[in-house]
Amino acid sequence: FKKIKNGITGVGKEAKRLGKEDPRRIVHSFKVGLAITAVSLFYYLDFFFDGFGVDAMWAVMTVVVVFEFSVGATLGKGVNRAIATLLGGLLGVGAHDLASFTGEKVEVIILGLCLFLIASMTTFFRFFPKLRARYDYGLLIFILTFSLLSVSGYRDDEVLDMAQRRFTTILIGGAAAIFVCIFIRPVWAGQDLHTHTASNIHKLGTFLEVFGRVYFHEPNEDKNQASREDYKSVLNSNGVQDSLVNFAKWEPRHGKFRYRHPWDQYLKVGSLTRECAYKIDALNGYLNSDAQQTPLELKTKIQESCTKMSSECGCALSELAIGIETMSWSPCIDIHIVNAKSGATKLKALMKTGLWAEYSHTDLLTVIPAVTVAALLIDVVSCTVTIADSVGELASLSKF
Amino acid sequence: FKKIKNGITGVGKEAKRLGKEDPRRIVHSFKVGLAITAVSLFYYLDFFFDGFGVDAMWAVMTVVVVFEFSVGATLGKGVNRAIATLLGGLLGVGAHDLASFTGEKVEVIILGLCLFLIASMTTFFRFFPKLRARYDYGLLIFILTFSLLSVSGYRDDEVLDMAQRRFTTILIGGAAAIFVCIFIRPVWAGQDLHTHTASNIHKLGTFLEVFGRVYFHEPNEDKNQASREDYKSVLNSNGVQDSLVNFAKWEPRHGKFRYRHPWDQYLKVGSLTRECAYKIDALNGYLNSDAQQTPLELKTKIQESCTKMSSECGCALSELAIGIETMSWSPCIDIHIVNAKSGATKLKALMKTGLWAEYSHTDLLTVIPAVTVAALLIDVVSCTVTIADSVGELASLSKF
Repeated sequence: FKKIKNGITGVGKEAKRLGKEDPRRIVHSFKVGLAITAVSLFYYLDFFFDGFGVDAMWAVMTVVVVFEFSVGATLGKGVNRAIATLLGGLLGVGAHDLASFTGEKVEVIILGLCLFLIASMTTFFRFFPKLRARYDYGLLIFILTFSLLSVSGYRDDEVLDMAQRRFTTILIGGAAAIFVCIFIRPVWAGQDLHTHTASNIHKLGTFLEVFGRVYFHEPNEDKNQASREDYKSVLNSNGVQDSLVNFAKWEPRHGKFRYRHPWDQYLKVGSLTRECAYKIDALNGYLNSDAQQTPLELKTKIQESCTKMSSECGCALSELAIGIETMSWSPCIDIHIVNAKSGATKLKALMKTGLWAEYSHTDLLTVIPAVTVAALLIDVVSCTVTIADSVGELASLSKF
Repeated sequence: FKKIKNGITGVGKEAKRLGKEDPRRIVHSFKVGLAITAVSLFYYLDFFFDGFGVDAMWAVMTVVVVFEFSVGATLGKGVNRAIATLLGGLLGVGAHDLASFTGEKVEVIILGLCLFLIASMTTFFRFFPKLRARYDYGLLIFILTFSLLSVSGYRDDEVLDMAQRRFTTILIGGAAAIFVCIFIRPVWAGQDLHTHTASNIHKLGTFLEVFGRVYFHEPNEDKNQASREDYKSVLNSNGVQDSLVNFAKWEPRHGKFRYRHPWDQYLKVGSLTRECAYKIDALNGYLNSDAQQTPLELKTKIQESCTKMSSECGCALSELAIGIETMSWSPCIDIHIVNAKSGATKLKALMKTGLWAEYSHTDLLTVIPAVTVAALLIDVVSCTVTIADSVGELASLSKF
């Protein structure tokens, strides 16, 4: 009994956490409830499904299956379902007509053969990566409609009539889902992708802004390890971004985004951001495992340039993130990048002067960490430059 | 016209490539065609759907929607669909009964309210990560069945009868899909996951086996860059592995795998493999960009230990991969690991002796690449050890 109680409070806590993390989830749930109830009650009260009979359930079914979290996903599924139903229906009616010209026994063979070939071929098409990304659901519905029509058509001679009724109800259901999805607190995948890209860059910026000070144990170092390690979520962001881009492509003009916004450019920015995040992950490793202490005086020598590179890159990335979010290009970005580059040049020059000579007879393994951190920071500077370039390209493509 | 021709040959080529890459895709397509045609024709010829009427189309629909590439995915969807239909049906009939005790106007309100609440709540449950991973499809079908029954029940007083007919046809369709999926050339997600894990480790092994020789430009170096860079596919393997594990958990005993095979351990091995792959990606960067040449004599000094570490780790990983595939533990693995460890110890000792003293006045930036490669190889050795440990754990958990 106590176990059940614990279970229920556990579910309650998890629900609260999920709702707090993204309140749009709660809104979405109510929107789905609303759309399903509305369509069901219209059907039930015979408002405008008069004469559709059992076929009206296709409207309810379409709402349940098509309604997704973001507008793009809902539109994608809705359009896929509508077009696939139309094509599958036409072909199904055609196969039915073709078969009906022949004798009854031949009819079965022809219908079976058609069904087998079309189902197999369409299933194989679902393996094509490009079709899979955008039209997987449509291909499935195509098979479904074709098989339902070509077969159920045999019993009922009003195939065309049934096909039309079914298509109309699916259109009504799809339209209801899309209407509620767009006009009540819409969740735009494009906007999400945009914010997601900016916040990923911002997370890297937050880390770099404080990294230098923390590494060199400066007095005003940031102790907040948790917020610093936010960047870790960037490392596995590829899946989320891919699907958001796929959804965003379905969306019409909204907010600051045109219909043909350069969504693919976000993938480019995202992959460069991830690349930089891996370098930052390596840097973070040196923060946590300081088993072999680098001689302090050596650290002091590189401290200035390293801290400068780190914080300037951090500021540049944070400014870039703000720039993406507000869709503007701040001149600060270029200044920070110039500063970071000059820090890198200085550090390289410092290294060329044989600065490390005096440590050459000490344990080289104590020198390596500092040298690696310096090298990683130089890499981070060039990563920052490429991220800034790709964001600049995004800005010019989307004309902000 | 030429464009269409080019398009068709393009599709043909892509189809051929996809079929060659994994011939099971072709088999799968024909299996789906077979299952759909069989169920449709049974329905059409009235074999055992006698008396089911229109509801028999649910059998066809279930086959189309439930049939997936692997047995695990098909079973998961089938079980989800069956249980969700049962629960949704029971609750739908219950709601209908409850509402029918009241007056007609109150009935509408009660049914609408029930539907709204249950649809909203279930939609919110779909956001729970644990439910999402295994029962997302079931929750969707639950909403679908509940709304179809609670609403269509109003018109037809034989609700229970209809619910039972629908459930039976869904069971028949699901059983047909699962039968064809399991008994004709089955694709086991568990087997796939097992092979995938082994092949990922093997790819890292292949790289490391030749890395040392290529880096130090030994005469018998491997020129085959393409096969060396196979490891890149490991970097983004997390999505594939997660879904394979989810599917594998649905599968019954098959081949060498028990029902409760330790599938989660594959995730652990997989993430350690990816970690190692990132280090290898960093090493690969040093192969391709040798802009700043390290002094040859310095390279020569570390050559022996580095080559040894690299090739011994490579052999250990390749042996591990073979061990996973054949489900056996070769004693060679331990020998290779001991050798790699001794290489690392030797290199560390070499570094402690102030080996680099004479280069301290040259450009340190030319020394860094070699030092970093050495440090990365030391990391790779410890990665290899942890991979071997986790595979050992897998071996003892699954008793091979």
